Amino acid sequence: MSALSPAELKPLFPILQQDVNGHPLVYLDSAATSQKPRQVIEAVQRYYERDNANVHRGVHTLGTRATDAYEGAREKVARFINARSASEIVFTRGATTSINTVAASYARAVCKPGDEIVISPIEHHANLIPWQQAAKATGATLKHLPMNDDGSFDLAGAAATITPNTKMVAVTHLSNVLGAVTPVEEIIALAHKHGAKVLLDGAQSAPHLKIDVQKLDCDFFAFSGHKMCGPTGIGALYGKRELLEAMEPVEFGGEMIDYVDLFDATWKEIPWRFEAGTPIIAGAVGLGAAIDFLTEVGMENIEAHDRQLAAYAWERLSAMDGVSVYGPASGRTSLVTFNLEDVHPHDVATVLDAEGVAVRAGHHCCQPLMRWLKVSATARASFYLYNDESDVDRLIASLQRAKEYFGHAIG
Amino acid sequence: MSALSPAELKPLFPILQQDVNGHPLVYLDSAATSQKPRQVIEAVQRYYERDNANVHRGVHTLGTRATDAYEGAREKVARFINARSASEIVFTRGATTSINTVAASYARAVCKPGDEIVISPIEHHANLIPWQQAAKATGATLKHLPMNDDGSFDLAGAAATITPNTKMVAVTHLSNVLGAVTPVEEIIALAHKHGAKVLLDGAQSAPHLKIDVQKLDCDFFAFSGHKMCGPTGIGALYGKRELLEAMEPVEFGGEMIDYVDLFDATWKEIPWRFEAGTPIIAGAVGLGAAIDFLTEVGMENIEAHDRQLAAYAWERLSAMDGVSVYGPASGRTSLVTFNLEDVHPHDVATVLDAEGVAVRAGHHCCQPLMRWLKVSATARASFYLYNDESDVDRLIASLQRAKEYFGHAIG
Repeated sequence: MSALSPAELKPLFPILQQDVNGHPLVYLDSAATSQKPRQVIEAVQRYYERDNANVHRGVHTLGTRATDAYEGAREKVARFINARSASEIVFTRGATTSINTVAASYARAVCKPGDEIVISPIEHHANLIPWQQAAKATGATLKHLPMNDDGSFDLAGAAATITPNTKMVAVTHLSNVLGAVTPVEEIIALAHKHGAKVLLDGAQSAPHLKIDVQKLDCDFFAFSGHKMCGPTGIGALYGKRELLEAMEPVEFGGEMIDYVDLFDATWKEIPWRFEAGTPIIAGAVGLGAAIDFLTEVGMENIEAHDRQLAAYAWERLSAMDGVSVYGPASGRTSLVTFNLEDVHPHDVATVLDAEGVAVRAGHHCCQPLMRWLKVSATARASFYLYNDESDVDRLIASLQRAKEYFGHAIG
Repeated sequence: MSALSPAELKPLFPILQQDVNGHPLVYLDSAATSQKPRQVIEAVQRYYERDNANVHRGVHTLGTRATDAYEGAREKVARFINARSASEIVFTRGATTSINTVAASYARAVCKPGDEIVISPIEHHANLIPWQQAAKATGATLKHLPMNDDGSFDLAGAAATITPNTKMVAVTHLSNVLGAVTPVEEIIALAHKHGAKVLLDGAQSAPHLKIDVQKLDCDFFAFSGHKMCGPTGIGALYGKRELLEAMEPVEFGGEMIDYVDLFDATWKEIPWRFEAGTPIIAGAVGLGAAIDFLTEVGMENIEAHDRQLAAYAWERLSAMDGVSVYGPASGRTSLVTFNLEDVHPHDVATVLDAEGVAVRAGHHCCQPLMRWLKVSATARASFYLYNDESDVDRLIASLQRAKEYFGHAIG
């Protein structure tokens, strides 16, 4: 397998061919949303120009084509994460909806007072608040896994936190702030020892790591299309067949029913039971095209490239005076979170933007983690397959000028 | 205002420029999903090629542009239905999610045993099953408005059905099977007399009627983008400000919070409280472009055109021997539902498809209405601004040949 070449990939992304504020754009905000290659944009366009119709219900030719395109995309998602079957793939609006579905359906059905839902203090709000709500609704106890000082998981502490009362464990697979890959194999084994089910928030991992849900043996896996070169407004929930089959739907309407009378209704088989209403058809087609693209580049290549680039950025940022970096030093990929001493990260991001360098600043939907890090906010540079070391060099050079600009503040 | 000219509009829809099964495509399935003009397809493409970024949280230039595009689309939706403010517009995955949000949040909060939820027997499953579930969850009684023999609403019966115990009335604004416009002004007045709130399912009306939610005085209005020239996977919920402000969110995650700690969270103001996670950004941009397009053509023109075309199709189909048409003879628009005597509508649709004429066949997500009509399924021809009388003539000619083909059956 050949190495990944951003120089060859970048031209495939139309948005990256522009100047921003008089400088060639360096997009370092892929953890928020990735950019889209021409293949994905054109797949969506082609769907609307040739095949668009509503799915499943159509006897006519376009209806059949649209159904094939939609269900074909489901097959691609299943292969991409190595699910046993496409019936284990539910299309959703994104990782947030995927997680909410499990918290509102599975967790509320199985949890009762005395049971435990275990998450971690580094979770994105999307993998935190749904479980707070599920705990409140069921009387279950919400517990947080302990963390080591460097932001890595404390596995001995995890073994004590997950107990026979634990029904559900939900953790990020890759932190959107720390850039650290969670030791999910160990956590899944601990949970399964006690019969608890595990949901992985794969919003950040699906774009950057080769995912094999059978090998991981996770029970649920949630991810978004828009962070992995796909369109906005589409994502997926993987669930083991027997779990999805036992779950009640959380939205009701057309497409998800079997028999309906005036006062009651029965549900279709999985996965359609969870897809009420006209599906996100073009979104699924675009996600399928994104998966084709990522697969052609090779997820192993992407994984190696993103690890290497994050390591280079970590090294360069760590070497700068007055810059703090956050998270474990090793086992990282895809992003580096940092602060410039005594300067608010919004100001840092604004100065970088003036030089065409796009980074994110804020709490990154992780308010509890910000308090744990003892900061109100951070800047974050996140990378993807279209970035290379020259982008990191541009970041460092602009950050150097920001330091000079804010010189009075950092003395 | 000039009359609408399908001859000028049709070339704007790339998908309509094709042959299907050797015949120029006649697309008569717009009630399931409409086709998209070049303007909409290009707006989505342009968003991805120039402005794509995550919204609200970005300090960088693309983040600002994407936020402006997304919130600008919300302003367009607000103007399109004459809401008081863009804050009364929640972007959703579609009408189904919009209705589910009200049923899961508003109705479950206000209804208790003894209260009544009133719907009708002609509702689409999307405006039926969420209320069945809300009634079950709260102990409220689900009631159905009475209908006249021709499928029109019995307003005297409605006055008796809606009582001081009624908390919620949810009806279609335009039936996707009968093609009849509901007398919503009268129903809303009856409901408000007793202090009940009214949700209109506008999935079919928003594409075909000029909507003014202030004039209608409905409390909630739900609709989908994909049926009105917009992308799949985007829709909106309008709610009166004071109602939305009193409602709890049903999905939880990023973007919808104010303060989050390890065990609890508070919500952002409306409408963002209801939009957890990365929004359907490109979908909203595409819906905004669809609204620009429809507004340029003129909703009054579209309304007049669609009424006239449905009347012409009704007249032609009614005049055919062996063809039954369903629904009231007057007050109709946008579609005609019919059956060919003794032939299953799937077979009818298949024969029409062989001649390039796309109609839908099935229960149209209205199983109770099918039983009320004493049929298992029907065929449906539905129209939009790109159709004209020649498309109806093609339908009639193909149906005539279908009659001959199935001659043995209809004797």
